[in-house]
Amino acid sequence: MPEPSLAPVEVRTATGRYRAIAGPGALADLPNWLRAAGVSGRARIVADEGAWSAHAATIEAAFGTADPKFQVTSVGGGEAQKSLGSAERLYEWLIRSGTQRGDYVVAVGGGVVGDLAGFVAATYLRGLPLVQVPTTLLAMVDSSIGGKVAVNHALGKNLIGAFHQPRLVVADTRTLQTLPAREYRSGWAEIVKIAMIADRDLFTELRACSGRLLTFADEALLGRVVRRAIELKGAIVSEDERESGRRIILNYGHTIGHALEAATDYDRYLHGEAVAIGMRGAAVIAHGRGLLSDQALDAQTELLAALGLPDHADGVKSESLLGPLSRDKKARGSAIRWVFATDIGSVTTADDVTASEVARALDAVGCT
Amino acid sequence: MPEPSLAPVEVRTATGRYRAIAGPGALADLPNWLRAAGVSGRARIVADEGAWSAHAATIEAAFGTADPKFQVTSVGGGEAQKSLGSAERLYEWLIRSGTQRGDYVVAVGGGVVGDLAGFVAATYLRGLPLVQVPTTLLAMVDSSIGGKVAVNHALGKNLIGAFHQPRLVVADTRTLQTLPAREYRSGWAEIVKIAMIADRDLFTELRACSGRLLTFADEALLGRVVRRAIELKGAIVSEDERESGRRIILNYGHTIGHALEAATDYDRYLHGEAVAIGMRGAAVIAHGRGLLSDQALDAQTELLAALGLPDHADGVKSESLLGPLSRDKKARGSAIRWVFATDIGSVTTADDVTASEVARALDAVGCT
Repeated sequence: MPEPSLAPVEVRTATGRYRAIAGPGALADLPNWLRAAGVSGRARIVADEGAWSAHAATIEAAFGTADPKFQVTSVGGGEAQKSLGSAERLYEWLIRSGTQRGDYVVAVGGGVVGDLAGFVAATYLRGLPLVQVPTTLLAMVDSSIGGKVAVNHALGKNLIGAFHQPRLVVADTRTLQTLPAREYRSGWAEIVKIAMIADRDLFTELRACSGRLLTFADEALLGRVVRRAIELKGAIVSEDERESGRRIILNYGHTIGHALEAATDYDRYLHGEAVAIGMRGAAVIAHGRGLLSDQALDAQTELLAALGLPDHADGVKSESLLGPLSRDKKARGSAIRWVFATDIGSVTTADDVTASEVARALDAVGCT
Repeated sequence: MPEPSLAPVEVRTATGRYRAIAGPGALADLPNWLRAAGVSGRARIVADEGAWSAHAATIEAAFGTADPKFQVTSVGGGEAQKSLGSAERLYEWLIRSGTQRGDYVVAVGGGVVGDLAGFVAATYLRGLPLVQVPTTLLAMVDSSIGGKVAVNHALGKNLIGAFHQPRLVVADTRTLQTLPAREYRSGWAEIVKIAMIADRDLFTELRACSGRLLTFADEALLGRVVRRAIELKGAIVSEDERESGRRIILNYGHTIGHALEAATDYDRYLHGEAVAIGMRGAAVIAHGRGLLSDQALDAQTELLAALGLPDHADGVKSESLLGPLSRDKKARGSAIRWVFATDIGSVTTADDVTASEVARALDAVGCT
C-alpha cells in the first residue's frame, strides 16, 4: 500500500472515472498505478525534452518494470510545439513503431506536451488510452485534469482538440524541484485560483505556508496541497465534463489573463503570471460592484505577492487587450462571461460587465 | 407528422441517442428534424462537389428555412480528400467564418465527406454537433451511422480519427437517383452484408426485390430497405460504441475486401465491390469449415450477382493481398479475426484461420 500522502484522487467522468496520484515519489509506484487503472499494452512515451533529461532515469526505471516494450520520443518545449505539424510527426512515429489499439500514450512534461500528446492519443486509431505524467505544477493541478486536449491553429490557440479523459494521472511532486523557479511560481496561480473559487481552507493554508511551499521545505505539505488542488478541479470538471455550465468558473482570472497573453504574443508572461494579473483585474471589478470585500481583495493580492506572482502588467496598452477580450473564446454571442469571486472560496458569473468597468480594471493592473 | 416511411430510427449511444431519418423526401423536412434533435446555431455545410451540384437546390431550400445564416464549402471527391491537409483547410474556413461553439457542421455527400467533415466537427473547438446528410447508399447505411470519423495518413487509411456521434442523420433516398450506377450498386454490398450477419428477412426481401431496388421502381420499398439497414447497423453499434467487441461482426467481407482495395491502390474497386468479393471469400472459408451450408453460400452468391456486384477479382495476385491481410487493422497480436456468416442472418468469428484456408478462398475469388 502506498503511504497515505499518495492516496488516489478519484475523478468522475461521463462514462467512468480515473485516478490522479499526487505526492512525493508517486512515479516509483507507476507499475502499480497502471495495473490498478487497467492500463496494459506497450507505452508510447511523448516527453518534453527538458523533463526527459531531468526524469528519464526515474521514469525508465518505473516503465522498465511495468512495460519493457515502452518507447520514447521527445518534443521541444514551447507553445509552438502544439501544432498539427507536431501531431503529424507523432502519428508517424506511432505508426512506424507499430502502435496498435491495445497500446497507450504517456505524456511526460508540462501542459504543452500533455495537450499535444493528449490530442494525438485522442485521435490515433480513434483514441488510445492516455496516461498523464505532469512534471510542472501548472500541468499537475490544471491541464492534466479534465480531459481537455488540443493543438493550436495559426489563427488561434487550442482551436483543434478533443475531450479525451486520461486513464491515469501520476503527479510526482518531487519533479517540481527541477523546474525553473519562475515556472514553478507561475504554477501557483492556478492553485490560488482554485482556492479563491472553491476552497477557503486551502486559501488559508496557502497563506500560512507560502514560504515553505516555494522552497520545498516540506514535501508532505506540498504533496497534500497539490492533491487538494487536483481534487477541487476534478470535482468541478466532473460536474461539467463538456464545459457547458459550471466549468466556466475555472476561467476565473483567465478573461484578462488570456487577453494579456495574446496582446504580448505569448512571450512576455507565463500563463500563471497572466492569470495572476487577471485575477487581480477580476477582483477589482468584483470589488467595484460590491461583490468582494476589501479584506478578500487584499488577501488575494497579498497571497499572490507572497508566491512571487505579478499583479501588474506595466507598459501594456489597454487598447491592445480589447481585441483579444472581444474574441474571448468563452464569449456567448456578443457578451463576455466574467467569473468573479464573491468571497474567498465562492464565485459567481456576470455577462453585463461594462466597458468602463473593464477600463478601470485594466488601469488597476497597470495597463495604460 | 411525417409519413410513416419517414419514422425516425433511434440509435442509442453511451451518452444519449440520435435519430436517423431515411426515406424519399426526407430532406424537405430538415427544419423539423433539426428542431426535434435540439440542433440550433448556424449550419456550416461541408459538401461533396458532385452532391452539391445535384442537391444544392433542395438543401438550400431546406436550410434557408431552418437557418438563414448557413454557409457552404465544397470538397472534391475521392479518398485523397480525407487528409489532415483537407482538415486544416476546413478548420481555417470555420475560423474565418466565425464559427463558434453553438454552431454545427453538416456533412453532405458520401463517406469521404462524412468522415472528413465529421473529423473536423469532432475536433474543432473540441467538438461541434454533427449532422450527417448522406447522399450515397454506402454512406446512408454504413459510414454515417456509428460515429466513426477519420482522415487518412500517408502510411494508412483512417489512422487519425475519433468517435463522434452525429446528432442527426437525414438520408433522403431520392438523392440516390443521381448517383453513378456503379457507385449505387456498390452500396448494396453493405446492405447484403448486414442482412447476412443480422437479418434473414431483409435478405429474403432483397432477393425478391433486387431488380426493383436497382431501378428505383418503388421508392417506398427503397426507403424501407435503407431504413431497415440503418436500424440493424444502429443496433450493433449501440451495443459496442467503441468497437471493442460485437461491432467486429460489421467487418464481414472486409478482411479480404480491405486487402483487395490496398493491393489495387484503392483505384480498381469501389469499397462495396471489394466487400462483395470479400464476402464471397469469407463464405468460401466458412463453407469449407462446415459452418455455412451449400444453400446459404449459393444464396449469397446469387444475391450479389443480382445486384450487379462482382464475385471475382480476376488478375489480382494472391501474394499482393498477403501483406495487407497481415496488417489488417482488426488484427489482435498476430492473429486476424475473421467474421463468418454461419447461416443467413447469423454470424461468428474465428482467430484460427490457416494460411491454406486463406489461399483457397483467394483462389475461389479469382486471385492467382
